[in-house]
Amino acid sequence: MDDTARIDRFLKHALAGVAGPGAPPGLAAAVSHAVFPGGARIRPRLCVAVARACGADSSAAALAAAGAIELMHCASLAQDDLPCFDDAPTRRGQPSVHSLYGDRLAILAADALIVLAFNVLLRQSAGTAELRLGLLGLLAAATGMPRGIVSGQAWECERAASLSDYQREKTGALFAAATMAGALAAGSDPLAWQSVGDHLGEAYQVADDICDVIANPQELGKPAGRDAVLGRPNAVGHLGLPAARARLQQLVAQTLAAIPECPGATELRAIFRAVIEPLLAPRVARPAAA
Amino acid sequence: MDDTARIDRFLKHALAGVAGPGAPPGLAAAVSHAVFPGGARIRPRLCVAVARACGADSSAAALAAAGAIELMHCASLAQDDLPCFDDAPTRRGQPSVHSLYGDRLAILAADALIVLAFNVLLRQSAGTAELRLGLLGLLAAATGMPRGIVSGQAWECERAASLSDYQREKTGALFAAATMAGALAAGSDPLAWQSVGDHLGEAYQVADDICDVIANPQELGKPAGRDAVLGRPNAVGHLGLPAARARLQQLVAQTLAAIPECPGATELRAIFRAVIEPLLAPRVARPAAA
Repeated sequence: MDDTARIDRFLKHALAGVAGPGAPPGLAAAVSHAVFPGGARIRPRLCVAVARACGADSSAAALAAAGAIELMHCASLAQDDLPCFDDAPTRRGQPSVHSLYGDRLAILAADALIVLAFNVLLRQSAGTAELRLGLLGLLAAATGMPRGIVSGQAWECERAASLSDYQREKTGALFAAATMAGALAAGSDPLAWQSVGDHLGEAYQVADDICDVIANPQELGKPAGRDAVLGRPNAVGHLGLPAARARLQQLVAQTLAAIPECPGATELRAIFRAVIEPLLAPRVARPAAA
Repeated sequence: MDDTARIDRFLKHALAGVAGPGAPPGLAAAVSHAVFPGGARIRPRLCVAVARACGADSSAAALAAAGAIELMHCASLAQDDLPCFDDAPTRRGQPSVHSLYGDRLAILAADALIVLAFNVLLRQSAGTAELRLGLLGLLAAATGMPRGIVSGQAWECERAASLSDYQREKTGALFAAATMAGALAAGSDPLAWQSVGDHLGEAYQVADDICDVIANPQELGKPAGRDAVLGRPNAVGHLGLPAARARLQQLVAQTLAAIPECPGATELRAIFRAVIEPLLAPRVARPAAA
């Protein structure tokens, strides 16, 4: 079974544990729709891949951390799509959660997914109590205040925000949690893996910003051009398109250079390249032919 | 220092740790406004009182659990007051969070408080790792799906809901977490304290429902008559006023009868009576004079 299938199986099992009999049916449906069908599952795949590179193949703790991080990511998407934030009717080529279930259930689904993210780490029994607390600490640090995805989203409500602070918190924090949790689950030093996730997260966000400007909605599976409409910080808006492309190339190089020595470094670089390659598609990374 | 002052000091310290330099200023202000000025702090006071009754005076773990539960409660209030839920312009006699800071920051403040609730238990160092995991597990079970305050709120989005299921989840779950966490922090069996919290939470909700029908907004510090306007489950609406009053009396008796034998049972009963007394104020518990 490949990593994406293992992650999806873990997520299905986690949802089945909370969205069964006794749960409000509307909330259960909204939560399921927020998680399935999934996107690329990049963050959890990174987490599992880093654990394997550090020598822990099929680590149950890494899989739980990966699942928790993806649940937190799905919560943030359901919330970001709300009318008062990005007002996005579609996500992953499907109706967004609020479009199908209304604003109230979209907000509550995000809450339920945040709690579930902590709960899947609490309930998984692999590793010591200290390991579980360490993984929970990484998850909390990547999601709340003063750093984390909630803070990143809140910078959108400020008149002035540093683009790199914003992108590091809104996107980088969860990527860094993924690489750090994978290392910790494998018994390695998580701090050695922070910059890998930071750089990759920022690269991913800059690529997303470029796509928002140049792509069309069919390619994206969500509306395009929203950052400009909504006045959101966007690398292209801040730097211009050529400098944003140069920044993307720089961040990709920094990501690959930051990978620490580890038993599976070669395989990990191949996986990273597979994640990074779409970011470097000709239209995103290089000026389009005239 | 009395328990309320200790709890408020704990909450101030927890907020100072996340709402300082580096945090988005609007989010930091919204989070602070959601927690201060506080209400009666009933849930955290219960938690600390149960720990003391079980023999753990000044337990740092109980104080952290109490703080975490209050943070979760404050998150739920900020969210419940949103226009798409109760549309309440005031709370605790002040403007509600969204009235001052807008819907986006109210939603994000609730997220940040949920994460902070887990984080204060992760970062407190009292007790063993197993105790911290146990307290975190009680918090998660009381807030998410299939039982917990998020599920309770989601029953409001269903056409049909059992009043007692709704009240047990929306209000009882966090009261039960308070009594159970207090017992666990003191090394006692949390399960023996579950029904105390369940009954008290339901009593509190029935009293709140009666107040919603008979009180005026100045007395409540929030709008009155909202349940009927919004079609929310309400004990008076389901049972009628006389039967709702009888149910309140019954729940109060069940609460007092459920207190297990413990070193500080006498003092605890006095504290419970102080919490319960306002619920039994003549206008709420007995028919008003004609």
